Amino acid sequence: MSQKESFMKEIIRKIAGFEGVSESEITGKVKSGRAVIPLNFQRKDIKKPTVIGEGFTVKVNANIGGSPDIEDAGSELEKLQVSVKAGADTVMDLTIGKKWETILRKVLKSSPVPVGTVPVYAVVCEENSVAGINGDEFIDIIRRQAEMGVDFMTIHAGITKKTVEVYDSSDRLGGIVSRGGKLLYRWISENKKENPLYEYFDEILDIAKKHNVTISLGDGMRPGAIEDASDEVQFSELDTLGELTRRCRDAGVGVMVEGPGHVPLNKIEENVLREKEVTDGAPFYVLGPLTTDIGAGYDHITGAIGGAFAAYKGADFLCYVTPAEHMHLPDSNDVIDGVVASKIAAHSADIARGNKSALERDRKMSLARKNLDWEKMRDLAIYPGPLEETFKKYKIREDRACTMCGEYCALLDL
Amino acid sequence: MSQKESFMKEIIRKIAGFEGVSESEITGKVKSGRAVIPLNFQRKDIKKPTVIGEGFTVKVNANIGGSPDIEDAGSELEKLQVSVKAGADTVMDLTIGKKWETILRKVLKSSPVPVGTVPVYAVVCEENSVAGINGDEFIDIIRRQAEMGVDFMTIHAGITKKTVEVYDSSDRLGGIVSRGGKLLYRWISENKKENPLYEYFDEILDIAKKHNVTISLGDGMRPGAIEDASDEVQFSELDTLGELTRRCRDAGVGVMVEGPGHVPLNKIEENVLREKEVTDGAPFYVLGPLTTDIGAGYDHITGAIGGAFAAYKGADFLCYVTPAEHMHLPDSNDVIDGVVASKIAAHSADIARGNKSALERDRKMSLARKNLDWEKMRDLAIYPGPLEETFKKYKIREDRACTMCGEYCALLDL
Repeated sequence: MSQKESFMKEIIRKIAGFEGVSESEITGKVKSGRAVIPLNFQRKDIKKPTVIGEGFTVKVNANIGGSPDIEDAGSELEKLQVSVKAGADTVMDLTIGKKWETILRKVLKSSPVPVGTVPVYAVVCEENSVAGINGDEFIDIIRRQAEMGVDFMTIHAGITKKTVEVYDSSDRLGGIVSRGGKLLYRWISENKKENPLYEYFDEILDIAKKHNVTISLGDGMRPGAIEDASDEVQFSELDTLGELTRRCRDAGVGVMVEGPGHVPLNKIEENVLREKEVTDGAPFYVLGPLTTDIGAGYDHITGAIGGAFAAYKGADFLCYVTPAEHMHLPDSNDVIDGVVASKIAAHSADIARGNKSALERDRKMSLARKNLDWEKMRDLAIYPGPLEETFKKYKIREDRACTMCGEYCALLDL
Repeated sequence: MSQKESFMKEIIRKIAGFEGVSESEITGKVKSGRAVIPLNFQRKDIKKPTVIGEGFTVKVNANIGGSPDIEDAGSELEKLQVSVKAGADTVMDLTIGKKWETILRKVLKSSPVPVGTVPVYAVVCEENSVAGINGDEFIDIIRRQAEMGVDFMTIHAGITKKTVEVYDSSDRLGGIVSRGGKLLYRWISENKKENPLYEYFDEILDIAKKHNVTISLGDGMRPGAIEDASDEVQFSELDTLGELTRRCRDAGVGVMVEGPGHVPLNKIEENVLREKEVTDGAPFYVLGPLTTDIGAGYDHITGAIGGAFAAYKGADFLCYVTPAEHMHLPDSNDVIDGVVASKIAAHSADIARGNKSALERDRKMSLARKNLDWEKMRDLAIYPGPLEETFKKYKIREDRACTMCGEYCALLDL
């Protein structure tokens, strides 16, 4: 057995323990392309590797990273820590700004969970004009980030010249809301050339294969408005993602597919089923989806509604949305609220999908509640913070009802 | 036309305007029992009457009211104000404590929206022992509250001697979690007599008819744990609620039916369909439902997930859940978070159900977002607070991207 093979065997053993499944279940699903283990060969001492896909618990990603307006490595490392504490299964460092490499190196050094990036962000930070970027630069950055140890990368290879045509002749309300999608749209439109990520996809596959980077096929044309959900633009890109999924599998590269976005409740199931059909069951990584456009300030909630329903219907991986969405760069408190909301969505789907350990945790919580065992309730809660604050503020004693009903608590046996 | 008839005609005209539907649509649905207008004849100057049921927008109720531990009229009036500002369509004053009458009178005097109560709470506050309550006292309090002007009342008439038997022989995990349900369970068990609310239901109907009080049939046996959802205890009570619904209709009394509780995503649809079948389409008023037991501190989110899905599948009225649920009596901030989360759920369902004005609001929001028109975004948001704070803190200027992406904002046309 090669060194790489024995490393992966050890990782799978560890994940099997976390998931409560057998090692062969994981190996089988990964082989069939219905699950992925995002893990760069460099990341030998990763503490919390994970598996994402069919048959496993629903996972949650937290986006961290600075922006040109707020770029501070310390804050981003703090967000990494609170994300993991709140239960994020992966993080993506989406820094877009001059310090991207410094921040990414620090995140990779201290992250116990898999780390993802969107390499086009780094490309654009190193060039002043989008149209002026040379096609090779995209591939160079992907190689650099793979060598740095990035575990999974969003590759916006689905936006082709054809997608741009479909978009240009569409009457979309919300336009393009993906940063990466918009960058490539502009590059293709201004240069009148094919998307380099699509054109040189084989080179990307070589890099991914060499470093064991999982490819997350980006949905640059995801709907950013309820009205645009399931439109021709979105599904035209999805068809290309299906083709690229097959190419990843043929090359032995792990692949998952990203999905929307803003989608009303009545279109979520069709979105999940269509992704699964077009990609022959590739893990589906959804951003939200948000079930209304008017949730600014509360989009962790609109995202939890859509995420729970999407995961119940088969989505595998939820990208969190924070209360800062559509307003500002999230701070650490926003990050906690975002992770917890997504974990609630993921756990609600695990429950609905009959996951035994999820059901057991709820069972234990209900017993603790019936017994008014506050310490146990805190230990079993999705996040202990609010219960800890309640203990301090309201001085709840053991076996004592809370201030909601006082002596009339239904759980007291008077 | 009698004075009462012309009053109701005026109310229906007003509601038709709010809803964007014709007066005859409202009249027809109310006549068929598929919708209710909770409104006591005393409340002549109500500012925001509402209709709840089939074909109308999903409504949200906010529970306010003190407990024996925290009983202060000022706080409850503040909660009333913030509830209405955040968009609550009704409030229930659930005060359980000696000051119930003082608080309820003040709430009724200042509430622009319909006010509901749970009369058994007041009964128990005036007696020291549950078993010692005389059956007549239940009816007397219902009459007193109807005379005070209460618009709708939760009547726990579905817990009969038979329901108690079913419960006693069940292996329920979470027990009885409804305060009213537990009180009646104890009264029936200790006195070995039939539930007075069931036994004297005709008297209750006379009172309701006289004052135009809408009856909300309580679900005292609602599941308080995921494991108990859709159990025999719950559905046995629901059957009785179906029988009582028919008696309300025969008496010409408006009636809606309350529902769970803690329900996993995979059982929400069956709960909605069953309620509609058993009650021949009576408006369904759900508490949450919460899609997991472990959300303490974040149960406005677990409730929004369940509420959105329930309403999408046909529930008509969402009782909010606040972040304080399972922990302490909510304060004003909890109330705002609870109402907003439920409004998001209700609006997401309106969108999924194809409501035109809901879709139009989202459309306008997406246009404002695309144009980076921050003032309009604030005006169209589900609640303006977070955007207002963002303006102050991050000094967002017109046509300027937010700190999330800065100059790389996908919406900027560079």
